[in-house]
Amino acid sequence: MANAPVQRMSRLMAKTLRDDPADAEVLSHKLLVRAGYVRRTAAGLWSWLPLGKRVLANIERIVREEMDAIGAQEVLLPALLPREPYEATGRWEEYGPELFRLQDRKGGDYLLGPTHEEIFTQLVKDQASSYKDLPVILYQIQHKYRDEARPRAGILRGREFLMKDSYSFDTEDEGLAHSYALHRAAYQRIFERLGLDYRICAATAGAMGGSKSEEFLAPAAAGEDTFADCPHCDFAANTEAITYPLAPVDASAVPAVEELATPDTPTIESLAAFLDVPASATLKNLLVKVDGEIVAVGVPGDREVDLDKVEAHFAPAAVELVTAEDFTGRPDLVRGYVGPQGLEKVTYIADPRIAPGTSWITGANKAGTHAKNVVAGRDFDVDTYIDVVVVQEGDPCPKCGTGLTLDRAIEIGHIFQLGRKYADALKLDVLGRQGKPVRVTMGSYGIGVSRAVAALAEQTADEHGLVWPREVAPADVHVVAAGKAVQTELALDVSEKLREAGLRVLVDDRAGVSPGVKFTDAELIGVPHILVAGRRSAEGVLELKDRRTGEREELTVDEALARLSAL
Amino acid sequence: MANAPVQRMSRLMAKTLRDDPADAEVLSHKLLVRAGYVRRTAAGLWSWLPLGKRVLANIERIVREEMDAIGAQEVLLPALLPREPYEATGRWEEYGPELFRLQDRKGGDYLLGPTHEEIFTQLVKDQASSYKDLPVILYQIQHKYRDEARPRAGILRGREFLMKDSYSFDTEDEGLAHSYALHRAAYQRIFERLGLDYRICAATAGAMGGSKSEEFLAPAAAGEDTFADCPHCDFAANTEAITYPLAPVDASAVPAVEELATPDTPTIESLAAFLDVPASATLKNLLVKVDGEIVAVGVPGDREVDLDKVEAHFAPAAVELVTAEDFTGRPDLVRGYVGPQGLEKVTYIADPRIAPGTSWITGANKAGTHAKNVVAGRDFDVDTYIDVVVVQEGDPCPKCGTGLTLDRAIEIGHIFQLGRKYADALKLDVLGRQGKPVRVTMGSYGIGVSRAVAALAEQTADEHGLVWPREVAPADVHVVAAGKAVQTELALDVSEKLREAGLRVLVDDRAGVSPGVKFTDAELIGVPHILVAGRRSAEGVLELKDRRTGEREELTVDEALARLSAL
Repeated sequence: MANAPVQRMSRLMAKTLRDDPADAEVLSHKLLVRAGYVRRTAAGLWSWLPLGKRVLANIERIVREEMDAIGAQEVLLPALLPREPYEATGRWEEYGPELFRLQDRKGGDYLLGPTHEEIFTQLVKDQASSYKDLPVILYQIQHKYRDEARPRAGILRGREFLMKDSYSFDTEDEGLAHSYALHRAAYQRIFERLGLDYRICAATAGAMGGSKSEEFLAPAAAGEDTFADCPHCDFAANTEAITYPLAPVDASAVPAVEELATPDTPTIESLAAFLDVPASATLKNLLVKVDGEIVAVGVPGDREVDLDKVEAHFAPAAVELVTAEDFTGRPDLVRGYVGPQGLEKVTYIADPRIAPGTSWITGANKAGTHAKNVVAGRDFDVDTYIDVVVVQEGDPCPKCGTGLTLDRAIEIGHIFQLGRKYADALKLDVLGRQGKPVRVTMGSYGIGVSRAVAALAEQTADEHGLVWPREVAPADVHVVAAGKAVQTELALDVSEKLREAGLRVLVDDRAGVSPGVKFTDAELIGVPHILVAGRRSAEGVLELKDRRTGEREELTVDEALARLSAL
Repeated sequence: MANAPVQRMSRLMAKTLRDDPADAEVLSHKLLVRAGYVRRTAAGLWSWLPLGKRVLANIERIVREEMDAIGAQEVLLPALLPREPYEATGRWEEYGPELFRLQDRKGGDYLLGPTHEEIFTQLVKDQASSYKDLPVILYQIQHKYRDEARPRAGILRGREFLMKDSYSFDTEDEGLAHSYALHRAAYQRIFERLGLDYRICAATAGAMGGSKSEEFLAPAAAGEDTFADCPHCDFAANTEAITYPLAPVDASAVPAVEELATPDTPTIESLAAFLDVPASATLKNLLVKVDGEIVAVGVPGDREVDLDKVEAHFAPAAVELVTAEDFTGRPDLVRGYVGPQGLEKVTYIADPRIAPGTSWITGANKAGTHAKNVVAGRDFDVDTYIDVVVVQEGDPCPKCGTGLTLDRAIEIGHIFQLGRKYADALKLDVLGRQGKPVRVTMGSYGIGVSRAVAALAEQTADEHGLVWPREVAPADVHVVAAGKAVQTELALDVSEKLREAGLRVLVDDRAGVSPGVKFTDAELIGVPHILVAGRRSAEGVLELKDRRTGEREELTVDEALARLSAL
């Protein structure tokens, strides 16, 4: 392939801005707009300008190389998809308002693909007939669509975004585990080549379904996910996915339940103050409605319920908080004084901290009255234990008990062992070794390509602007002509020589722009090497600056060529 | 970049089929499905399997290199677009049912981009402020959406398809002409590299608007366009775009209009037979309704009206044929006996063949009556002359008069000088040299990337299957292991060596598939070189076959490596 032409800033469609865009809250959004990488076209819809498109293409190339290296085959499916297969798996409904739905001229129902499990399953059903045709891994790099309620943070959460999605098809569980391991290793190589700092965290499968999933999280203040890291062992998990084992306690010494008059104590705070006990000694019972049915959720009084976890547990059923009206006609539910020992016809779910044998102060199901010595498993039953508390800094590591640290992060990759959910819904079988049909087991794996641009910007930027890792940068060298004719001549000459040596060159040849503005723009744009044709241009001497470290040195043209070509 | 891994057919998601798909009518559709390049996902929506994706990527690479070489800058705009800019140019309505329209969760109107003039105009409005920022050429390679009434011919006319679209922005007409010339030359290089046979033809601008446009047409039986070629001079044009100069005739010797009793002659055939004159001596007047108003269209009696041309002239107004009801309450319109000399309150358009001074036999606007010696410009006026006849084989070349030949072709590229239509609608000005705002003039240029795959398949296939040109082929070499262990071993060994030499290799290592089926599949798939590890494998001798010419020769491994690496 021919070397790319030198890109002149005088012609480049990449206007830099001095000020942050008014609607920008996060660093990557501010910098990518200011440095001329992206522009907003509409809410959650972004245009990639030339520099941004190059970064995107570089990431695509790295992803493609590593996917090819694990034997994955690249395909390209439509983004506009028919309703039927999504109807078959239930996702046409389950996706709710996040799915872009539309009709064609004949009134047929279509959607813009948010993810392609259904269509890949159909494709393999059409293509594979025998166990000999498997295992297979297929991938594509393609735009995905999700109608976010609140598109935000620039390209971090857009409504149209570029994703690499891949799907593995195996006949046996060990095969799926192997395909999953191949992806996990490929993702590690990809994110290392991209120069991203990341953690592999246990994750919940969410609406995708399936048995096992892990997320690749890039720590960043702008992240929407919170992950817990153990400073002692190798444990790391999205806080949504942390689970604790149930540890029953001996309650044989606990006296019988005793009622306490606690007037005007409908909240945990008022109760703890009235009884002079820590909130952690009390049991908080939150009432929610799941598809209209009341469910009580029990957690220690000093902890908050994570409603996302409750929703994830009951999905796709809708979870709502109860309102005052829900108590009318329900004398069994006494607002502010609910206790699990008196509940009838109400499902009770509880956090594992409410393990069998633990004893609590909780509502006595009478106004102004609580009860103490209320023991789980003796005085009330828990229908289902699920981890529903909001994880806090210092909570014990489920693996070694050390206090966890919490950090914000951006989800840049997610790998799932889906199992047979989609194959069951769409009846994907192949002829097995024994001559009988075998149901196929699947994995699904995603990398947010456009999101990785934002994650990189978040992690590598400094106070002067963007700082791209080499493989991702829109150019290898940013040549700056300080302004005089001799400087411009030298800058263009060295740019051409660098191009001939196979380097990708951006040259700031703008007339009528001060050297100061050019230097500021070069720092903002963030190409790894800045080569300035400045005051010693007449002697043929340039200044090479390392964008990341700020180190500078003076070099002749030949020295600069040798130095940069060696990189 | 690392060499791509050897692709094994035993793992490749590319099942070949013996039979043509039931719904396939054109060659490229049949072959691309049978050879495992594409699969239908829904009407007009196609999935690209691994081999097809590679061909697509090769075409993209060539297009990108040649666009970069003319200084065009690659960007990427959303495919999901807001209504407002398309409302401003009128295209939200004009596109009619061909536009996919949808609403987001908040009820906002969006569309799937059929072409991006509006959004690029907005982008440049945001980015360019001075004449110094221009000229600029921007391009993207992206999926486009059109809700075709009858998606057909496989990927030739899909509802989601891959296009390279580019847009030029200049302050002066000469600048636009230059940007247009750059594109014209780049397109020639692209189609030559692709190995496509093509003609550059004068074309109509259609709904795009603008002053000048040319199409790149690839002759193929499956084409939807018809182009006329002059066997004598260099004239070539889409038949839709052929125009003849108006050549007035001296009518001073023509007697006055004379009525003729012509009972029961409501058709040209019956009239010509009754009067024993050639149909070409009569004037046919077709009535149509344009947005409800009646318009008469005059052509010689032996010619057909091309309704597409009438529609193009009146677009975006809707053109319909009149029905019996349209004659009620209109005594001036006598069905079967209409003549332009008696029409009032009816717009009359005519083909240039009805030039001033020409004399005709036509309806006398009375039942059973015609008139002769009816002279254009003397006895009736033509409101507008437009070329509306269906062009026929043998019609004179507008340039030299030689009889034209007609052929079917596929439109693979289209270049437009748009002028200021979009800049006017969206108020795109920059500060000019004189310090005053200057309205920008634009060009728009498209290449059907996915369509080029079909055009290539149509033009290069033979009776055995596909025959890809080298730069486009999904692999450089297709190695076939005839079946025995020694053959498979040699095939895999030589494949690896070819890969190391930088060649892209597909190897048919399938077990349990007969050599005959493998040879048939290799011909069908159409990689340029087929290297067979057959009966002389034990000696390390292979057979190299040229897919296009069918030439074969026996070579040792080293000879094969040397031969193929030299290509």
